[in-house]
Amino acid sequence: MREISGGVTSAKGFSAASAAAEIKYQGRDDMALIYSEFPAVSAGVYTTNVVKAAPVIWDKKITDSDNAVCAVVVNSGIANACTGEEGINYCSQTAKAAASGINAVFNTQINTDNVLVASTGVIGMDMPMDRVLNGVNMLVNDLGNDKEHGTKAACAIMTTDTIKKEACVTFEVDGKTVTVGGMSKGSGMIHPNMCTMLAFVTTDINISKELLVKALKEDVKDTYNMISVDGDTSTNDSLILLANGACGNAVIDSEGEDYDAFCEALHFVNRKLAMTMAGDGEGASKLFEVKVDHADTRENARILARSVVSSSLTKAAVFGNDANWGRILCALGYSGVDFDPQKVALYLESSSGRIHIAEHGRGIDFSEDEATKILGRKKVTAIVDMGSGEESATAWGCDLTYDYIKINADYRS
Amino acid sequence: MREISGGVTSAKGFSAASAAAEIKYQGRDDMALIYSEFPAVSAGVYTTNVVKAAPVIWDKKITDSDNAVCAVVVNSGIANACTGEEGINYCSQTAKAAASGINAVFNTQINTDNVLVASTGVIGMDMPMDRVLNGVNMLVNDLGNDKEHGTKAACAIMTTDTIKKEACVTFEVDGKTVTVGGMSKGSGMIHPNMCTMLAFVTTDINISKELLVKALKEDVKDTYNMISVDGDTSTNDSLILLANGACGNAVIDSEGEDYDAFCEALHFVNRKLAMTMAGDGEGASKLFEVKVDHADTRENARILARSVVSSSLTKAAVFGNDANWGRILCALGYSGVDFDPQKVALYLESSSGRIHIAEHGRGIDFSEDEATKILGRKKVTAIVDMGSGEESATAWGCDLTYDYIKINADYRS
Repeated sequence: MREISGGVTSAKGFSAASAAAEIKYQGRDDMALIYSEFPAVSAGVYTTNVVKAAPVIWDKKITDSDNAVCAVVVNSGIANACTGEEGINYCSQTAKAAASGINAVFNTQINTDNVLVASTGVIGMDMPMDRVLNGVNMLVNDLGNDKEHGTKAACAIMTTDTIKKEACVTFEVDGKTVTVGGMSKGSGMIHPNMCTMLAFVTTDINISKELLVKALKEDVKDTYNMISVDGDTSTNDSLILLANGACGNAVIDSEGEDYDAFCEALHFVNRKLAMTMAGDGEGASKLFEVKVDHADTRENARILARSVVSSSLTKAAVFGNDANWGRILCALGYSGVDFDPQKVALYLESSSGRIHIAEHGRGIDFSEDEATKILGRKKVTAIVDMGSGEESATAWGCDLTYDYIKINADYRS
Repeated sequence: MREISGGVTSAKGFSAASAAAEIKYQGRDDMALIYSEFPAVSAGVYTTNVVKAAPVIWDKKITDSDNAVCAVVVNSGIANACTGEEGINYCSQTAKAAASGINAVFNTQINTDNVLVASTGVIGMDMPMDRVLNGVNMLVNDLGNDKEHGTKAACAIMTTDTIKKEACVTFEVDGKTVTVGGMSKGSGMIHPNMCTMLAFVTTDINISKELLVKALKEDVKDTYNMISVDGDTSTNDSLILLANGACGNAVIDSEGEDYDAFCEALHFVNRKLAMTMAGDGEGASKLFEVKVDHADTRENARILARSVVSSSLTKAAVFGNDANWGRILCALGYSGVDFDPQKVALYLESSSGRIHIAEHGRGIDFSEDEATKILGRKKVTAIVDMGSGEESATAWGCDLTYDYIKINADYRS
């Protein structure tokens, strides 16, 4: 497996486009289109919020079915959530316009139910459909399969994100080079269980629907569901995986070496997109990683890691470069997992080094200066040794800063 | 029932003291003592955190037993949490010093296991026992049953609190005047399920242990467990209720009118102490109240109210006087309670008036100016009508502000 520079247009047969449709933002691209010239098998994972945005309902119906997916239309600025029954109409109109636009440009026969839609932005605002449809028209005429088109699409879906998120790898299967590439956006409202977070991963592998769905469902547990910015699980979170088979390998329809190679590549792309989102959390000044080792079960390791990475007090201490290890132990303690505090050891690590800060559930003497230096880096890792088993998990988040408040105190205006 | 000005010294037979022991703070009182000249029946509710501070372990053993309680020693500054086995020794030494000090001053026969201890402050620091014991010595010589001694005790237990918290009511039972008075501290680390929060309620009612425990356990569900500042459940949360029977009523040992009257008084005191803590959350500029009406079950109403009051995004919007109702609906949606979003209506209310902001799960036209005015008050209420049942619950929290970050980014130094 090899990481390359690329995104959603890197896999064969996929192209992308972006457009400035002025849905809410001015003077920047705010719509994107992903198009696969070969009908793709799809898998989707969506928000667990009871209040689901209309695009989530629209997409889930399609990815849960055997429909091929040919295109995904995305807009930033308005979430199309809490828009009542009208919300589904917005999706249907958007998909219909994309299908007929693509059919006109490429002389294809795509249907409305081959098109996914995704939205992110303010909840509760109606979609300005004239501008959306105008945007779709621009998009279908701008499609390109080069890297730049992929990157521009990754920029168009950003909201409060400060950096665009792309990842890509290639590997060999059956003598063919397979590419898995993706883009995502997400910054606020990020919390385990899919949070406003949109992620789109495209691959040219030839794989059965059943295995594609399985690979994605398994992988989110250790990637997107292990990041948290603020504990708010959004109405719109969607992760879409499309596989169009264009690389020409014999179809993968059973588990084995080829499936494992695909899972590894998928994990790399998902993990990178997830980590990048966590580090770009609203107002974040650094990426905060929490590794839990020697837990009794894998699921407990995940719960413990997420509890620490989600703790406001710990995040504020990380912002202040303060090695307040008691807050880490406290966050482990209220996670819901039962454990013996006396067995727990804590370490801090960054590119500046590693320091042991607690042992047997108690603080030990350590250099505050050294700890402050370690915490002062752009990526800081807290290592939690539970001392009670063999399972591990890693969660990603960010520090809690003044800028988080600034961004969120008046987001709508 | 009548609210009066008072606190832990208002009930007959209770006195209090405070002292500047320099445990961590300088130039202010940081230790307090509550003393009952009549042995009191006790009830306690403690943190659910797996990592429990030593005083929690010490007190739980006593309040779970039939031991009478005569005194409570409290310190602020250091939490005596994550202090290993030494932590229990600190408790034992403190209780022993208090018992022998009180015995010397009042010629009584109190034992170590008649004394509770409570601590709040930095986790993981060892207790400076010479200063603690010196403080105990000052405390036993300063006891007084007047209002001022109660208030000074309420001030001594504060950490990042900006105001002291006291509440008191009187009512009649069996021809006698019963008093229920209390004090509490708590500002950061506040979240449902007892969070660093210490609360002490004293009453001169004559009541059985069984009913005292029952009354307290029932009441916390709608008071202390309905407040949240930052979602971090502390290692030290303790709520202690002492009843010494000094008012001379015939013992209440079965439910009925007298028990109900006591529960009502207890609820008033607990609710006031809880609300005051929520409104004085770290960095808070206002009290944020969330009332959920017409939910299908009481427990679901509580879960929904707590989810909204705990949402960082909603709290940041409240700080910014931004009527971002979509975030409220979103927080209801990820609470874990299943409901039909289309039935939900939302209102905002304060001393400036009331405004209807969403209906059938969608936004409705409202005056942003009026909403901003309502949100600009010191107490703001979000009213959530679930439209699906008869049950209600109220939760209290505060807004999320720049000052929360400031206080918590470097709390230890």
